[in-house]
Amino acid sequence: MMGQVSWIAVDWGTSRLRVWAMSSLGQVLDNTESDQGAGSLQSSEFEPALLALIDPWLCGEASMPVLICGMAGSRQGWLEAPYISLPAKLSDVACRAVSVQTGDERLSVSILPGLCQRDPSSPDVIRGEETQLLGLANAMPNFSGQVCLPGTHSKWVELDQGKILSSKTYMTGELYKLLSTQSILRHSVGGSTSWSETGFAEGVRKGSFDNHSFAADLFPIRAHGLLFGADADRAAAYLSGLVIGTEISAELGTNPLGKTIIIGAQKLADHYRTAFGIVGADAELIDAGELTLLGLSTAHKLTEQTCDKLRDPV
Amino acid sequence: MMGQVSWIAVDWGTSRLRVWAMSSLGQVLDNTESDQGAGSLQSSEFEPALLALIDPWLCGEASMPVLICGMAGSRQGWLEAPYISLPAKLSDVACRAVSVQTGDERLSVSILPGLCQRDPSSPDVIRGEETQLLGLANAMPNFSGQVCLPGTHSKWVELDQGKILSSKTYMTGELYKLLSTQSILRHSVGGSTSWSETGFAEGVRKGSFDNHSFAADLFPIRAHGLLFGADADRAAAYLSGLVIGTEISAELGTNPLGKTIIIGAQKLADHYRTAFGIVGADAELIDAGELTLLGLSTAHKLTEQTCDKLRDPV
Repeated sequence: MMGQVSWIAVDWGTSRLRVWAMSSLGQVLDNTESDQGAGSLQSSEFEPALLALIDPWLCGEASMPVLICGMAGSRQGWLEAPYISLPAKLSDVACRAVSVQTGDERLSVSILPGLCQRDPSSPDVIRGEETQLLGLANAMPNFSGQVCLPGTHSKWVELDQGKILSSKTYMTGELYKLLSTQSILRHSVGGSTSWSETGFAEGVRKGSFDNHSFAADLFPIRAHGLLFGADADRAAAYLSGLVIGTEISAELGTNPLGKTIIIGAQKLADHYRTAFGIVGADAELIDAGELTLLGLSTAHKLTEQTCDKLRDPV
Repeated sequence: MMGQVSWIAVDWGTSRLRVWAMSSLGQVLDNTESDQGAGSLQSSEFEPALLALIDPWLCGEASMPVLICGMAGSRQGWLEAPYISLPAKLSDVACRAVSVQTGDERLSVSILPGLCQRDPSSPDVIRGEETQLLGLANAMPNFSGQVCLPGTHSKWVELDQGKILSSKTYMTGELYKLLSTQSILRHSVGGSTSWSETGFAEGVRKGSFDNHSFAADLFPIRAHGLLFGADADRAAAYLSGLVIGTEISAELGTNPLGKTIIIGAQKLADHYRTAFGIVGADAELIDAGELTLLGLSTAHKLTEQTCDKLRDPV
């Protein structure tokens, strides 16, 4: 590894732990990851899991700043980093990081908080995506509009020049997984081997133009296979299009204006962009991979340069 | 057991096998059941599973008529009894029963067919419920209107004086089970111990008046518990109300007129009747338990008295 490690960036999700050794100039000196996700760890197991990856980067003299985002900060994580209420400036995320006491003096660990919407009629929580949004706000400081972050739990946020106004979560990815592997529909979509653009487009149209009856749109997938012959490729893509189309149209129904930024991993994000096109909505795709690290770097800079001046003297 | 067994009625569902010994006057002389449902049996295992229950009723001389409804007639069952296309008279169900060759000369087995809607834009299949509908048509021969049969897969059919015009299936019960036990919502609804009328009513209202966004209505259950404190009773009943309310309003949106007959088991059917009341729709509840046997009896009578005259001489 070249250069001196100045701080360590950590993306600690439910199923993966990813770490980066950063220089003082913000360059990545080294990186690695493991499957020690927050979902599989007890509170006491976080520090050893982290050290197993970053020990080679610790120089031993001064304590190393380690900045963590993600589920490590949930109630079931390493230490709870309480949610910040919306509306909130993304810079607040950095400045309300919570310090973790560790048994190793070489570490100076802090965890970024999540965001929440304390509206009883539309409650929501975000943890992890706020860091990607911080990266987006760094890259596009003047952007105002809606952002879609597809995934197991898709997040939609309304962004206004570095401020998050509102958020909503759709269990789209989880619904797709449950329906395609656990429900009766597994007999129809199981064994699909290639992607069907046609099936996907049909599903998106059904889900978006006819989403009154999402509950009625599922069983026909099974009945269609029984009556007209099975086509697992088409059925799987159709189901995917149905849940994604339902999500997009539910959201665009309330926020029809402007361009949506999609932050996502390549394949799923591509499907979303395709779906936006099918329903005639404007979208720009930004790769999620780089945004998390950009967000952590932005947060690190803020904690060093800005936060102390903002922080209450408690 | 009193009296002579004239024929045997069989309700062979996915998970249960129920049999009744019937007199020539249509009275139940004896009945029993087992967990040898069609879902757990290979084709060759049906005859032994049936004999294990009904052997004591076989007198040994003439072959005993055995009339079966349910999943035993599916492609993965004992012998496929092909679907009848809608629209169809319920009496056709009886007259198109399929004979099964058995290894035991004491048996004369036939299986009732299911119904299907061969409309590519709204395909549907029914197997088992057609027999309850035959029972309903016997009890209320002049009824015209919609019938709701709640369950794992809720069926809605449009009935016109003994004729079924159309059908639709909602995966409501399966969605509830998957969401409450397999999704992230299990953390919110797990451990519920008593029924919350208030939570159910809130869910029904949300699902029926705001069903554009069913996909958006799920995660707030989790977020609400995280932000405002967990209440598993309320959350479980709310989720139940949400899926049921979504189903009812999706259906009433296209068929708003008249009274709906609900055929169901006591507790679930009660929830549906409550939900109908909440959305201001008229419903009458009929217990499913008796209708299956009434349907089998009706079918038996038809096969003896009417069908031979109707049957094509093939």
